[in-house]
Amino acid sequence: MFESAELGHKISKEEYDKEVPELRKNLLEAQLDLRDAGKFQVIILIGGVDGAGRGPTVRLLNEWMDARYIETNAMSAPTEEESAHPDMWRFWRSLPPKGKIGIFFGSWYTQPIVERVFKKTKDADLDESAERIIRLERMLHDEGALILKFWMHLSKDAQKKRLKKLEKDKEKGWRASKVEWEHFKLYDKFRKVSERVLRRTSTAEAPWMIVEGADARYRHLTVGKTILNALKERLAGKKVEAAASLPSALPPIDGKFLIKSLKYSQATTKNEYEKKLLKHQRELREIVEDSKFKKTAAILVFEGSDAAGKGGAIRRITGALDPRSYRIVPVAAPTGEEKQHPYLWRFWRHIPRSGSFVIFDRSWYGRVLVERVEGFCSDADWMRAYSEINDFEEQIADNGVTVLKFWLSISKDEQLKRFKERERIAFKHFKITDEDWRNREKWDKYELAVDEMIDRTSTDVAPWVVIEANNKYFARLKILKELCAHLKKAL
Amino acid sequence: MFESAELGHKISKEEYDKEVPELRKNLLEAQLDLRDAGKFQVIILIGGVDGAGRGPTVRLLNEWMDARYIETNAMSAPTEEESAHPDMWRFWRSLPPKGKIGIFFGSWYTQPIVERVFKKTKDADLDESAERIIRLERMLHDEGALILKFWMHLSKDAQKKRLKKLEKDKEKGWRASKVEWEHFKLYDKFRKVSERVLRRTSTAEAPWMIVEGADARYRHLTVGKTILNALKERLAGKKVEAAASLPSALPPIDGKFLIKSLKYSQATTKNEYEKKLLKHQRELREIVEDSKFKKTAAILVFEGSDAAGKGGAIRRITGALDPRSYRIVPVAAPTGEEKQHPYLWRFWRHIPRSGSFVIFDRSWYGRVLVERVEGFCSDADWMRAYSEINDFEEQIADNGVTVLKFWLSISKDEQLKRFKERERIAFKHFKITDEDWRNREKWDKYELAVDEMIDRTSTDVAPWVVIEANNKYFARLKILKELCAHLKKAL
Repeated sequence: MFESAELGHKISKEEYDKEVPELRKNLLEAQLDLRDAGKFQVIILIGGVDGAGRGPTVRLLNEWMDARYIETNAMSAPTEEESAHPDMWRFWRSLPPKGKIGIFFGSWYTQPIVERVFKKTKDADLDESAERIIRLERMLHDEGALILKFWMHLSKDAQKKRLKKLEKDKEKGWRASKVEWEHFKLYDKFRKVSERVLRRTSTAEAPWMIVEGADARYRHLTVGKTILNALKERLAGKKVEAAASLPSALPPIDGKFLIKSLKYSQATTKNEYEKKLLKHQRELREIVEDSKFKKTAAILVFEGSDAAGKGGAIRRITGALDPRSYRIVPVAAPTGEEKQHPYLWRFWRHIPRSGSFVIFDRSWYGRVLVERVEGFCSDADWMRAYSEINDFEEQIADNGVTVLKFWLSISKDEQLKRFKERERIAFKHFKITDEDWRNREKWDKYELAVDEMIDRTSTDVAPWVVIEANNKYFARLKILKELCAHLKKAL
Repeated sequence: MFESAELGHKISKEEYDKEVPELRKNLLEAQLDLRDAGKFQVIILIGGVDGAGRGPTVRLLNEWMDARYIETNAMSAPTEEESAHPDMWRFWRSLPPKGKIGIFFGSWYTQPIVERVFKKTKDADLDESAERIIRLERMLHDEGALILKFWMHLSKDAQKKRLKKLEKDKEKGWRASKVEWEHFKLYDKFRKVSERVLRRTSTAEAPWMIVEGADARYRHLTVGKTILNALKERLAGKKVEAAASLPSALPPIDGKFLIKSLKYSQATTKNEYEKKLLKHQRELREIVEDSKFKKTAAILVFEGSDAAGKGGAIRRITGALDPRSYRIVPVAAPTGEEKQHPYLWRFWRHIPRSGSFVIFDRSWYGRVLVERVEGFCSDADWMRAYSEINDFEEQIADNGVTVLKFWLSISKDEQLKRFKERERIAFKHFKITDEDWRNREKWDKYELAVDEMIDRTSTDVAPWVVIEANNKYFARLKILKELCAHLKKAL
């Protein structure tokens, strides 16, 4: 969920200074158009982690735009008057009228997340709050409101760095108080809870925009541009159909994509590989033979670019396992009977029973990869697939099954090298087809699809592990290591 | 929710015998069309209370239709194989392919309802299950499936009668075993839990059809005709837009509407009225002055036909109250500022704080009454309003506020009498306008809207009380009695 917001996005001072005047002018114009049209209101929610720049962004928006048509509502602990009414009363009081913008700094998300982090509630209560919020936002949308939800994110490392820096800073040192360090201890918990809520409440009519908060210029420009873009689209009459689909967010303004940012140069020597391979395989075998594993099960998903080495990696796993304990399910285009059922049906059939291991060589992710890029299904179909897949995996994971997904990524050059090699070597020849070359032409489209897939479906219950696979030895070892670590955690 | 299914619907043997052959023929034809088209599957869920005829209906459907294209799945306790997989696995296994009909006798609803009734889970868990089901059904719908959900209902009285009759019947006497009487003790709990689930899961793409189960002929014909109707519509290419709206169910096949079935002849003499009025007013005053009431609050909603006597009834309540403790909110067409906000906004403003009383003379129900009938809002707008209103009232009730809604109903003749009288008597004259006469012309449309409103928004947390108001004395006393009873229950 937060993968793309931990890449270290940055905007240089020159670029920022160049872009801001134009952006401010356009924002002001759009705001006046909004007022003159008077047909809908804009509701902007600002949430996120401590120190990710929520406050500064709110101040900046007030500075950039005409403050007469903005209402900023800082929603902290409820007052006595507010407590004497139902929870939502104070938000209804603060809703902006049509033609205006209302910024909520702290929102209907704050309370449910905080209460769950401090264990005053359970997951079921959290989910109930989330569903209530979905219904509220759908209603606001149906009533015409434009809802923009920003989540300011900082990685754990970035947060730690920030606190240490604050500590050293004599003037601001008081800010890195004990309280902030106490909060920091809850970072993982907070991330987990927020992820659960954000995943559930990122709907077509009110999607979350996750913004990396570390670099103020990147953060400001992203928020400003996103608001401008959404305002202009709505003023031009474009309205999302409720519950139809997730709209595409703006691609990162600094062009930094997840898949493009991988370090493909990472490598392991053959010598080291052979030594460590046996070690990791032994470790895996021990885990699977543990009596505790018999009560659970595991599903591994392998997806990746063509020629990224999925087959070889899978063999290194199965090499460590008792053949009776696993099954490999290779996934190709759906057959006749499979087409007669919803697309997830053919995967439900292969869900492992307790104590066993199923490895999917390609999977249900075909829907948001090949089917999306090749147009085999409608836009609405692949868009709704993200949440359907999240539901599917959560149901499996809830039953005690470990769900782990590997994306094997190689660079475009490396793929070309491998394709050519395969054509040269006879026994590998069968592996390269015209289709592979055609897919390669759509490299950029696939890259975008993969980025979105990982952002939308890498969850706490079923995470994606991205593998830099230019070097096969490195890739195989990393897969085994990650697999062992995740299985151990689950036991 | 179950109001319309407790009216004692009946179909005579003659009518039944006349209708069935045609219905069977049409069902068979539709079924063959479904098979030939092969474009979607039909998923029929049968749920409901003990003895409401679920089993016989399933058998009948199998008899009426071509059994080769129907698969009936009796979903009782999971087998060992099923238990070793995630909960939903067994339902996925049993999904019918396109072109076929799958009947689920017991479904994904059974477990969550039963577990809640036996207190193995909490409301939040129940709601979480409901939301999961909504997502599942939306996905099935998006994948093309036609989903029909029937809930067979028996009123508590009908259930009791059935058990007593079974006890006397020597041959079948074993059926009214202790177990059934034990279940009967849970009737109220079961009804409450089912209502909560049905209310949440009655969506546009998979609405619940509540069928009164007492009369087998009425039940069979209703189910058969509903299936036929839905099949034909879908075969003709009509598909509900997901999450857009609740489709209108078939009106009761025996023409028995809730509002039409009221006993308007109920009356109280003036003498009796004056005696009892004081008694009830004193009782009300005592309740409101109870220190426990200070921690709660109450919202009363008065809706009714024109000239049904809302004002007079409200005065009989306020007459018993300290003027500082209540507020009357008369609701007319929305003003300028109110129009700039979502339609519920102006009601949120008047939500009482703890210890106080708010009486709405007309209310948010305008949306599904006058706005619906007069076309002041789009169909989609009033259709989505039912669940939005339920959400709204649930939020208020969750805060400890009693929400009670009165529908004052008079017969068409009585209304005419009162209109004429008002025109005759000068000091009442201001009360009758051209608009009243125009509304009267739409009597039938209003009647349908009221029926649907009560069925969809009379909930356990915010019930409707229907008042037969032809006799004002009777009406006022009934309102006071019901009000005291509900307030007492809440304390």
